[in-house]
Amino acid sequence: MAEAARLGESARGRTGANPNVGCLIVRDDAIVGRGATATGGRPHAEAVALADAGPAARDATLFTTLEPCAHRSERGPTCARLIAEARVARVVIALKDPDPRTNGAGIAMLRDAGVTVKTGIGKRGAGQSLSGYLTRLRLGRPRVTLKLALSIDGKIALPSGESKWITGEDARAHVHLERSHSDMILVGRGTFLADQPKLDVRLPGLEQWSPRRALLTRGGPVEGWEILSSPLDVHRLHDVNDLLVEGGSATATAFLAADLVDRILIYRAPILVGEGKSSFGYIGLDAIADSHGRWRIGDGARLGIDRLEVYERVRD
Amino acid sequence: MAEAARLGESARGRTGANPNVGCLIVRDDAIVGRGATATGGRPHAEAVALADAGPAARDATLFTTLEPCAHRSERGPTCARLIAEARVARVVIALKDPDPRTNGAGIAMLRDAGVTVKTGIGKRGAGQSLSGYLTRLRLGRPRVTLKLALSIDGKIALPSGESKWITGEDARAHVHLERSHSDMILVGRGTFLADQPKLDVRLPGLEQWSPRRALLTRGGPVEGWEILSSPLDVHRLHDVNDLLVEGGSATATAFLAADLVDRILIYRAPILVGEGKSSFGYIGLDAIADSHGRWRIGDGARLGIDRLEVYERVRD
Repeated sequence: MAEAARLGESARGRTGANPNVGCLIVRDDAIVGRGATATGGRPHAEAVALADAGPAARDATLFTTLEPCAHRSERGPTCARLIAEARVARVVIALKDPDPRTNGAGIAMLRDAGVTVKTGIGKRGAGQSLSGYLTRLRLGRPRVTLKLALSIDGKIALPSGESKWITGEDARAHVHLERSHSDMILVGRGTFLADQPKLDVRLPGLEQWSPRRALLTRGGPVEGWEILSSPLDVHRLHDVNDLLVEGGSATATAFLAADLVDRILIYRAPILVGEGKSSFGYIGLDAIADSHGRWRIGDGARLGIDRLEVYERVRD
Repeated sequence: MAEAARLGESARGRTGANPNVGCLIVRDDAIVGRGATATGGRPHAEAVALADAGPAARDATLFTTLEPCAHRSERGPTCARLIAEARVARVVIALKDPDPRTNGAGIAMLRDAGVTVKTGIGKRGAGQSLSGYLTRLRLGRPRVTLKLALSIDGKIALPSGESKWITGEDARAHVHLERSHSDMILVGRGTFLADQPKLDVRLPGLEQWSPRRALLTRGGPVEGWEILSSPLDVHRLHDVNDLLVEGGSATATAFLAADLVDRILIYRAPILVGEGKSSFGYIGLDAIADSHGRWRIGDGARLGIDRLEVYERVRD
């Protein structure tokens, strides 16, 4: 299932409103089929993996990170039906699909067709790769990731505004990788005017994965950019699973004050800045005690001389 | 040698001007003697380990984190002589003692007495536990460790000054452990007046290891506190290997601006503060490029919900 989650993760940011599922078909201890949701959302991971396996899918075990779909579409038969027709013997599912059109109906269809179904295996890894999709189904908006490059003492720039470069090349390459797995990137008006950022993916081979660009501004339209006039506008982004907020400080503060951040990526450089620009302004905190229990430390990593810190919003 | 370094580390902050050495005696694959420099600095680790081993030291191998001393003292014979007299067959030394009274003379004495000597084994671990002593010999002052409890965004308090508690219990217990291994703790006048801190060690069983207390102030004497009128006064602390600077912001800034910090311990809480007090003021940085290459990420650790980040000053 870890390999299925990896396949699903590779499709993150590229499947539109569809979930970025990963699927693996195993027969006689050998992998006979692999699939991830295709770019744009179709075909689904299971259909891709079944096509990859061909006749070898018969009597095999299919691993998928999300319950196969049960709702018909004019774009083809449901995955539950495809799996049954391929005579797969056993399906292992990490997570049930909360989409009300499936939500258990895919499992029921498989069982009715005589397929053995097991659920709940590898939930954590699958949940992480599908976090954008699951957030959208649960909260009606994309998963919002806030990205910051910070010094040890939490500064984003010198008093002059100079911020190039707080982090090193490895950390900056990781940002581009994260961009390539986002559906949309957002910056504030100030960053737009100061940097005219392209926000594209500048990693060899990944250039075509540059995501849609959005601007947080109360001003008028800008060619090539989608406009959000308030952080609350994320609720109308129905085909965005993963939104990456890249700056600046006012934009980050607005998203945090509205409690619309689900994940924070800190690229922490081993430098001290001292007097300089802080990452955020007033985010609504009036007592230290109220700050606790909201964020949990996720998986970090060394990136050259820097360190990636991941924090996840705790929502019970 | 890792075990010898662990023994030496247990004596850190308790050996006065003497190095906190660790020593292990092994014969026939069994540990027959253990020693660490005693409280106050005497007896030395080798003498303690030899007394522990008794006749079993004969033909054994002795591991020590620092070259045995060769300079006579009215407080007893040199360790090099004691080892030779115990008929130890082989001595393994992590680091040569830079003290000009020994500096190779201990090794020469051992070899002259027919003892086999090997050096340079386990240098890194031994160097870390002896870092305070080595810093004092090299730079003529204690190793200065700066300790801070910070939020993700690098704040030490709310705008009101409220800072209790940024970190959790595990992190605060770790601070007390670090105190118990320091010879002296220093705070600034502001922290002294605001908090009247006791700076004692409040861990069960370690209360007696509360270090000496120092105050950074241009004012007059305060009972029970040693006075430093400037960070540069660390150069007259000849019997302090490890100095822990605990705050506040002005004191930390003064030590950093004078480049008198060798190690930074950040207790990083998974909280966002936003508008609040920054850790440091102007520390002399006028361009981001100048900030790089000064600090290296050391060994971190999870401490309950918080994370310890260790940074070490790079001095070539």
